[in-house]
Amino acid sequence: MQGCFGFAPTGVREQNPHLDLMEEDILYHLDLGTKTHNLPAMFGDIKFVCVGGSPNRMRAFAQFMRRELGLAGAGEDVADICAGSDRYAMYRAGPVLSISHGMGIPSISIMLHELIKLLHHAKCRDVTIIRIGTSGGLGIEAGSVVITDMAVDSSFRPRFEQVVLDDVVVRSTELDKDLAEELLTCSRDIPDFPTLIGHTMCTYDFYEGQGRLDGALCSFSSEKKLDYLRRAYEAGVRNIEMESTAFAALCGLCGLKAAVVCVALLDRLQGDQIRASHEVLWEYQQRPQRLIAAFIRKRLGLVRTD
Amino acid sequence: MQGCFGFAPTGVREQNPHLDLMEEDILYHLDLGTKTHNLPAMFGDIKFVCVGGSPNRMRAFAQFMRRELGLAGAGEDVADICAGSDRYAMYRAGPVLSISHGMGIPSISIMLHELIKLLHHAKCRDVTIIRIGTSGGLGIEAGSVVITDMAVDSSFRPRFEQVVLDDVVVRSTELDKDLAEELLTCSRDIPDFPTLIGHTMCTYDFYEGQGRLDGALCSFSSEKKLDYLRRAYEAGVRNIEMESTAFAALCGLCGLKAAVVCVALLDRLQGDQIRASHEVLWEYQQRPQRLIAAFIRKRLGLVRTD
Repeated sequence: MQGCFGFAPTGVREQNPHLDLMEEDILYHLDLGTKTHNLPAMFGDIKFVCVGGSPNRMRAFAQFMRRELGLAGAGEDVADICAGSDRYAMYRAGPVLSISHGMGIPSISIMLHELIKLLHHAKCRDVTIIRIGTSGGLGIEAGSVVITDMAVDSSFRPRFEQVVLDDVVVRSTELDKDLAEELLTCSRDIPDFPTLIGHTMCTYDFYEGQGRLDGALCSFSSEKKLDYLRRAYEAGVRNIEMESTAFAALCGLCGLKAAVVCVALLDRLQGDQIRASHEVLWEYQQRPQRLIAAFIRKRLGLVRTD
Repeated sequence: MQGCFGFAPTGVREQNPHLDLMEEDILYHLDLGTKTHNLPAMFGDIKFVCVGGSPNRMRAFAQFMRRELGLAGAGEDVADICAGSDRYAMYRAGPVLSISHGMGIPSISIMLHELIKLLHHAKCRDVTIIRIGTSGGLGIEAGSVVITDMAVDSSFRPRFEQVVLDDVVVRSTELDKDLAEELLTCSRDIPDFPTLIGHTMCTYDFYEGQGRLDGALCSFSSEKKLDYLRRAYEAGVRNIEMESTAFAALCGLCGLKAAVVCVALLDRLQGDQIRASHEVLWEYQQRPQRLIAAFIRKRLGLVRTD
């Protein structure tokens, strides 16, 4: 017995056989459900899903997209569709859904399972999903935007180990190559910050797992840390974050075209602490949003008139 | 080179040698720092730290503790000390700090590293830390409260595997036995819900990792699932959540006396979906809070007068 949802251009590819037997599906952490909400009416026209760690940032992105798409309500506040739960926040801007996922693989996995079921129940087709996040850069300037060509684990391997019951299943972390190229092409129209394609390393821990010397615990030397980060750089890693392998694996298995676009808040070869001002960090965080807005406008055939 | 902070009764046990060389420590995800905030003045008198996944729940707990401790400001709103960041929320009620940690090991680990450094910088002594969370029960009635005697991984082993650079370090997940017993004794004064001591299983995933049949992906049968959960029950597991092993390992290494007290929202031997009403779930979530309030009042020598 094996199954998953699929969102290939031709629609749903496969089903989880158990779900067909359920009278109702409660998407607990989103505070939505098939009996309490008309999911096709609420979400059937969604074509782009953007996810990121911080709820405030994903609200700001929805507001930004409303302005970018010239939608009514631009400038107004946007309503949190998951207001009944404080686990995640979800906002709409026309065909764009903007959702927070918290920090780390377990947190993004819960959201993705429920989001993928939501898109299935809503009968969405041809959905593109993009993670717009923050990261630590590796040998690149702070503020650079990295489009991930391959998500790798802490040993620089393009794989995600999923525990299923008490077994470990290894999954591919391949992302959509054409989508990454399309995003890189879009970035050429935004010359005021550097954008590049590279591998993204995904870790389970921000401190010891990313070789930081400034956690509550540290059992390695500065030399060991730099040796590890240099080996990561030589393996093609250009930034480090905490969600990309699980995101790539789950979206890939369910047939969603997926991309990861993260800004680097610092260069980890230069230090561990994030020392830039709130204003500078806020501007950095807008860079992936500006790139994705340009991409969505292009896909929708919108020409800038302002 | 090896080091960690310690909060044994005699004070700090060890130091991370790198931290002594830092002129400033920015606790990025808490939006606090040693140069921007007077941490000893803000936190030096903290004796109890309570952590839980949901920011709303931890705000409600701080408000509840203010009432329970008869503090000025009871009934009023409490200010989020980490308001400049939306990664975590932090509230005070007298000597009690209430902090949210999001979902999953990576998310709680980031918070704990920064919290432990905060307690160190603030020169706190004799701190007790308790995770008050929600969980899936195993062979116990929904609404039961489980005090963890041992946090185990998905193979029922009392260990936490921490990736350090590209190496794996195995850590103990022992919790404070006396504290667990003291909490069980307190529970006897609250007869209106069942409280028990048992093992808590900690997983990296809510769906496939906990044997749920209702995720976007499912590759196992109902029989396989029940076989796994029954084996967990036989190994002494009474509830399942997603943070306890990392919490026990990190607090243990840093000399913090730690406990885990979670309410079971359902019995996983009976089903996967959380179907209880918002009102019932809200009352369930108050149960660990009521137990911890009784414990803190007892520790502080407060006698109920209402």
